[in-house]
Amino acid sequence: MISCRSQVTQMIVSAKVRKSLKWTQVAESIGMSKEWTTAGCLGQMAFDKAQAETLGKLFELPDEAIAWLQIVPYKGSLPTSVPTDPLIYRWYELVNVYGSTIKELIHEEFGDGIMSAIDFSMDIQRQPDPKGDRVNVVLSGKFLPYKSY
Amino acid sequence: MISCRSQVTQMIVSAKVRKSLKWTQVAESIGMSKEWTTAGCLGQMAFDKAQAETLGKLFELPDEAIAWLQIVPYKGSLPTSVPTDPLIYRWYELVNVYGSTIKELIHEEFGDGIMSAIDFSMDIQRQPDPKGDRVNVVLSGKFLPYKSY
Amino acid sequence: MISCRSQVTQMIVSAKVRKSLKWTQVAESIGMSKEWTTAGCLGQMAFDKAQAETLGKLFELPDEAIAWLQIVPYKGSLPTSVPTDPLIYRWYELVNVYGSTIKELIHEEFGDGIMSAIDFSMDIQRQPDPKGDRVNVVLSGKFLPYKSY
Amino acid sequence: MISCRSQVTQMIVSAKVRKSLKWTQVAESIGMSKEWTTAGCLGQMAFDKAQAETLGKLFELPDEAIAWLQIVPYKGSLPTSVPTDPLIYRWYELVNVYGSTIKELIHEEFGDGIMSAIDFSMDIQRQPDPKGDRVNVVLSGKFLPYKSY
Amino acid sequence: MISCRSQVTQMIVSAKVRKSLKWTQVAESIGMSKEWTTAGCLGQMAFDKAQAETLGKLFELPDEAIAWLQIVPYKGSLPTSVPTDPLIYRWYELVNVYGSTIKELIHEEFGDGIMSAIDFSMDIQRQPDPKGDRVNVVLSGKFLPYKSY
Amino acid sequence: MISCRSQVTQMIVSAKVRKSLKWTQVAESIGMSKEWTTAGCLGQMAFDKAQAETLGKLFELPDEAIAWLQIVPYKGSLPTSVPTDPLIYRWYELVNVYGSTIKELIHEEFGDGIMSAIDFSMDIQRQPDPKGDRVNVVLSGKFLPYKSY
Amino acid sequence: MISCRSQVTQMIVSAKVRKSLKWTQVAESIGMSKEWTTAGCLGQMAFDKAQAETLGKLFELPDEAIAWLQIVPYKGSLPTSVPTDPLIYRWYELVNVYGSTIKELIHEEFGDGIMSAIDFSMDIQRQPDPKGDRVNVVLSGKFLPYKSY
Amino acid sequence: MISCRSQVTQMIVSAKVRKSLKWTQVAESIGMSKEWTTAGCLGQMAFDKAQAETLGKLFELPDEAIAWLQIVPYKGSLPTSVPTDPLIYRWYELVNVYGSTIKELIHEEFGDGIMSAIDFSMDIQRQPDPKGDRVNVVLSGKFLPYKSY
Amino acid sequence: MISCRSQVTQMIVSAKVRKSLKWTQVAESIGMSKEWTTAGCLGQMAFDKAQAETLGKLFELPDEAIAWLQIVPYKGSLPTSVPTDPLIYRWYELVNVYGSTIKELIHEEFGDGIMSAIDFSMDIQRQPDPKGDRVNVVLSGKFLPYKSY
Amino acid sequence: MISCRSQVTQMIVSAKVRKSLKWTQVAESIGMSKEWTTAGCLGQMAFDKAQAETLGKLFELPDEAIAWLQIVPYKGSLPTSVPTDPLIYRWYELVNVYGSTIKELIHEEFGDGIMSAIDFSMDIQRQPDPKGDRVNVVLSGKFLPYKSY
Repeated sequence: MISCRSQVTQMIVSAKVRKSLKWTQVAESIGMSKEWTTAGCLGQMAFDKAQAETLGKLFELPDEAIAWLQIVPYKGSLPTSVPTDPLIYRWYELVNVYGSTIKELIHEEFGDGIMSAIDFSMDIQRQPDPKGDRVNVVLSGKFLPYKSY
Repeated sequence: MISCRSQVTQMIVSAKVRKSLKWTQVAESIGMSKEWTTAGCLGQMAFDKAQAETLGKLFELPDEAIAWLQIVPYKGSLPTSVPTDPLIYRWYELVNVYGSTIKELIHEEFGDGIMSAIDFSMDIQRQPDPKGDRVNVVLSGKFLPYKSY
Repeated sequence: MISCRSQVTQMIVSAKVRKSLKWTQVAESIGMSKEWTTAGCLGQMAFDKAQAETLGKLFELPDEAIAWLQIVPYKGSLPTSVPTDPLIYRWYELVNVYGSTIKELIHEEFGDGIMSAIDFSMDIQRQPDPKGDRVNVVLSGKFLPYKSY
Repeated sequence: MISCRSQVTQMIVSAKVRKSLKWTQVAESIGMSKEWTTAGCLGQMAFDKAQAETLGKLFELPDEAIAWLQIVPYKGSLPTSVPTDPLIYRWYELVNVYGSTIKELIHEEFGDGIMSAIDFSMDIQRQPDPKGDRVNVVLSGKFLPYKSY
Repeated sequence: MISCRSQVTQMIVSAKVRKSLKWTQVAESIGMSKEWTTAGCLGQMAFDKAQAETLGKLFELPDEAIAWLQIVPYKGSLPTSVPTDPLIYRWYELVNVYGSTIKELIHEEFGDGIMSAIDFSMDIQRQPDPKGDRVNVVLSGKFLPYKSY
Repeated sequence: MISCRSQVTQMIVSAKVRKSLKWTQVAESIGMSKEWTTAGCLGQMAFDKAQAETLGKLFELPDEAIAWLQIVPYKGSLPTSVPTDPLIYRWYELVNVYGSTIKELIHEEFGDGIMSAIDFSMDIQRQPDPKGDRVNVVLSGKFLPYKSY
Repeated sequence: MISCRSQVTQMIVSAKVRKSLKWTQVAESIGMSKEWTTAGCLGQMAFDKAQAETLGKLFELPDEAIAWLQIVPYKGSLPTSVPTDPLIYRWYELVNVYGSTIKELIHEEFGDGIMSAIDFSMDIQRQPDPKGDRVNVVLSGKFLPYKSY
Repeated sequence: MISCRSQVTQMIVSAKVRKSLKWTQVAESIGMSKEWTTAGCLGQMAFDKAQAETLGKLFELPDEAIAWLQIVPYKGSLPTSVPTDPLIYRWYELVNVYGSTIKELIHEEFGDGIMSAIDFSMDIQRQPDPKGDRVNVVLSGKFLPYKSY
Repeated sequence: MISCRSQVTQMIVSAKVRKSLKWTQVAESIGMSKEWTTAGCLGQMAFDKAQAETLGKLFELPDEAIAWLQIVPYKGSLPTSVPTDPLIYRWYELVNVYGSTIKELIHEEFGDGIMSAIDFSMDIQRQPDPKGDRVNVVLSGKFLPYKSY
Repeated sequence: MISCRSQVTQMIVSAKVRKSLKWTQVAESIGMSKEWTTAGCLGQMAFDKAQAETLGKLFELPDEAIAWLQIVPYKGSLPTSVPTDPLIYRWYELVNVYGSTIKELIHEEFGDGIMSAIDFSMDIQRQPDPKGDRVNVVLSGKFLPYKSY
């Protein structure tokens, strides 16, 4: 009996290691970006029927798990509110150090409102650099103005 | 007597409102990016002597405050570990929802290590879009491999 | 020197008590709803120039405070993450008890996405009832579907 | 051996996915609203004997589980005090941003007291809108005045 | 300028010590119980105009403070979520040790619902006892049944 | 193997539902109050040998569990420091809203010291009331004066 | 205006440094132990009138402060729930490492109940030792048996 | 497979209840104090080979568990940072109420440094008293001066 | 099915106790330092294929576990944000007591930036000393200057 | 009136910026290491009379402040239990990532006990390196074995 999506995430993560799959391969198999696909496989997005069935074959999941992949999960992928993992912490630190700056500059350009985390996409690329390659990340989120009424 | 950098930050923020300055103007005055300049003015970066003096004039700061702008501040710009402000929270949410994805994809491309938050830059731009303009943010951080020894 | 919006909020709250004003009067003075106006006066929304000047007269605020009313504030009106005030706690309790239900029913009707708290309005009314009058609240938020990419 | 209600909730959630049921169907089966029924199935309300037996058939639950459905559960449906799921967080954010406003306006209209979260009902509906459909939620709670003595 | 009720609470507490008043005297002056009166003076209840004026004279408060006493305060009288003071902690401990018992016995007698903390009164008395006097506290709260709909 | 009292509590709670027992019946079986008996069965008190054996028969517990009922448990019956369950939360709220009042009035009557939560008893009764029945709770705790030395 | 005991504590601590007093001298001046006296001066105990007046002269306190010394304070002398100061932390660590042991051994000797922290005294002495002097602390608390009823 | 010391602790605690052993007997079996022995059995100290084997026989532990008893455990015996159990809480309360006093008096006698919790021993005894027996605890810790360099 | 690295860590820790291995032996077997090897075995570093296979033989791990050893783990080896274990707490205390000092001195010597915890190594040695041997730890981290842009 | 050491720390920090002093100069003035001196000036150590007077002249402190420098402070230099400043956080991260490793290796070499943070010294040096200079830190702490008794 599967009673929550995180059990399916564990099955996927376990199969990925056993079968030495790469997230880019997984993404290609369903024709979506590697960022959205990985987030979905890690329990943060819902898949449509065709995608779920393709993933089910790739990861050799039982039918019940394939059904779960189409259910909207309870989101949030971190075990603690301040992440302990150094790679993820650096992102938390960016929000902490630059958070007030981001707020000021978006408001200066757009007025009161937010950058959407829902109508949102992300692209992560290697940027070659003679002084050491860089991780280049492009975040794109729709600006949503606060409604006054 | 000024005994911590946050008193200077308050003076700057207060002067900016009183004098209706924009962060982009402030950045131009010292010839740096709007992102780094704003972060510095909000108490997250240290300025060199010339920058500090220019800012001192712009914001009409006392000499003691100009000295403080050259001191490395205790960083972290948020009052709570989970931010309450909706704009900043959306960024925290991104780290929460996409954190494990970012980790997986950077490790898949680069191996064990992190994306630096120190050798780092950020660029925030308006991206016109007929369905509603978007906030476009480019983050660039050097990849730092974990040393094995 | 005013260095943050909460000082202005204190001035407003203090003046409101001293002058025995009602929030509905305040809202009428600027021609907006009582909900949005009160939220703005309590430091959760930004006003335009005309609104800020009207409020400045009503609450007898200094010019510097009127400038601050036009700045987007750092939002979040509660002193603790779990509110202690019984009236506000009941709302927190609703989110706690009904949170998973709201999630299930919105996803069942709309698919993956959220109910916006930005493109949002709220209307609070007294609903007469012989067994004891009721508080009737209508919340309206745009549905925002999660983007897949 | 079932030793707490959450085990029954897991059985229900698991059966719902396996059998592709909808909450509206579940609600119809017992003749109650979709909001109250879903909350009950997710472990936040107690059912009477007839309701519990109907649900037992629908979800193919063992007799012990049907007995548990009639027991008042330990309520609270969120795993953390600040919810990480974006849909539920938006509601937490509403309480945070509008909490003090709600408090002010209810007190202005009714005096000291609270809006009951017990003598309470909720109705969630889709509101068609050319600019994007909206989620419309009506909350109705009895006003309870503070007793002075 | 008084900008929150807690400033008035401090004035009252300070005057009470300076003038060696007793809470029972204060309660008599406004003709209410000592429990409700003390809670009000400590910033947990709102007074009507006559009560506020009587208290204003007793504690020699300025007019602005008397206006504040008629405003519903932001409630919650403890500085930390788990109280450090030994006397108050014992009550927290009672809730912790007996909380599940209270829940079970009220549900067994009344069904699903709560004991109101709003339509509520409390009476604290000394109960002479040869083995050492006891504190006797009677709590009376209306039972509010959960509404099903 | 039973390695902590909470396993026995789960056995008892499970048996109580399966066998439709009431706490008042359980209390009668051992000749103690319903409050103390329930607290004991929920893992907050230790039973003597005769009581434990009677309970063992009533709940059909194994011998090992009967031995555990005679061991003093690690007390505290709530899963979080601020309880999420609405019924129990109302009690936490009473401590929060009335905590400072209780402290003031006990000190005014008795001087420095506490109301014992150990030499303590509680009695919960239904109090019929035409406006809605009330929960009446009598708490009795020995006053313990702070020792000065 | 003094509005809480901690202001008096600051006056005492400040005067003690300015006048180079020792706690043992302070204790002698009122004829009590150094442990109880220090706790009282640090805002954890209430003094009687004679003691308060003696301390008032010793620390040159205003009359209002002397009145406050006779009021039972809100107790708890640590700024965080886990103390950061190394000396005090070692005591917290003792409770953490030995807490379950203390519980087991007191219950084994006395049955269910507690060691009182109210009917309690403490004596701190230097114990000479050739391998390095030791701090010797004797704690004496009345055993209070849990009441069964 | 045993993968952490706490599994061994559970075996010991379970065997102790099953076999009705007392901690004083356990301590005698290895010739150490009851305080240190109990702490060790509860997973706070490491035993030598002979002690571990004796305990293994007494509690009928498997060989793997006996090996684990000789490994230094991850210490800390409380499930929450503020303990909920009333007996242990009283000790936490002592640290909270008397913490600053202990700090002041040790520094007054010894200068800057700490009382060791490592080079430490504890002795718990019953002290007969006509007004009710007392728990007498002697704590002895080496004073360690802060090194200046 | 292995679904996270911590299951492998448990297998390693369990095998190490069963087979009485030492970390220095484990380190020698793969030709790396004892510090990095231990961190890796405890789930904080990723191994290459050859290292993982050697460790697999040494600890008699299944193939699936060997695959997991080559995956970058979610790092962070402590169960609570403030560690309870006395040895590890002393290190936390160092950061707490000396943290601001370390910050000041590194900035004084190097300017704004950090000491890397990624391009980092650590060496732990016994330093004989007639007054008691000392633990000598050398930490070496690359200085990374904050980028200004 | 100075009522706690942190006021003196603010005076020192303020004077250091105003007078452009360096910590190495401060250390030389009292003939102690830069690490211990800085920690002391930042409120973590107590100075002797001669040191305090020298520092008083250097920082132009009032006599009352010089008296406070000789008092043992309440230690702990970080405003939050998990530090937000990136430089200090890296040290917290080291404890988190390497904490269990440090524990294992010290126990393997020394047996049960701790590395003292009291009988402790620290030396921070620049280590030139063609690939980027490194921060080299040597920590030396006496090993303290756990006493068994």
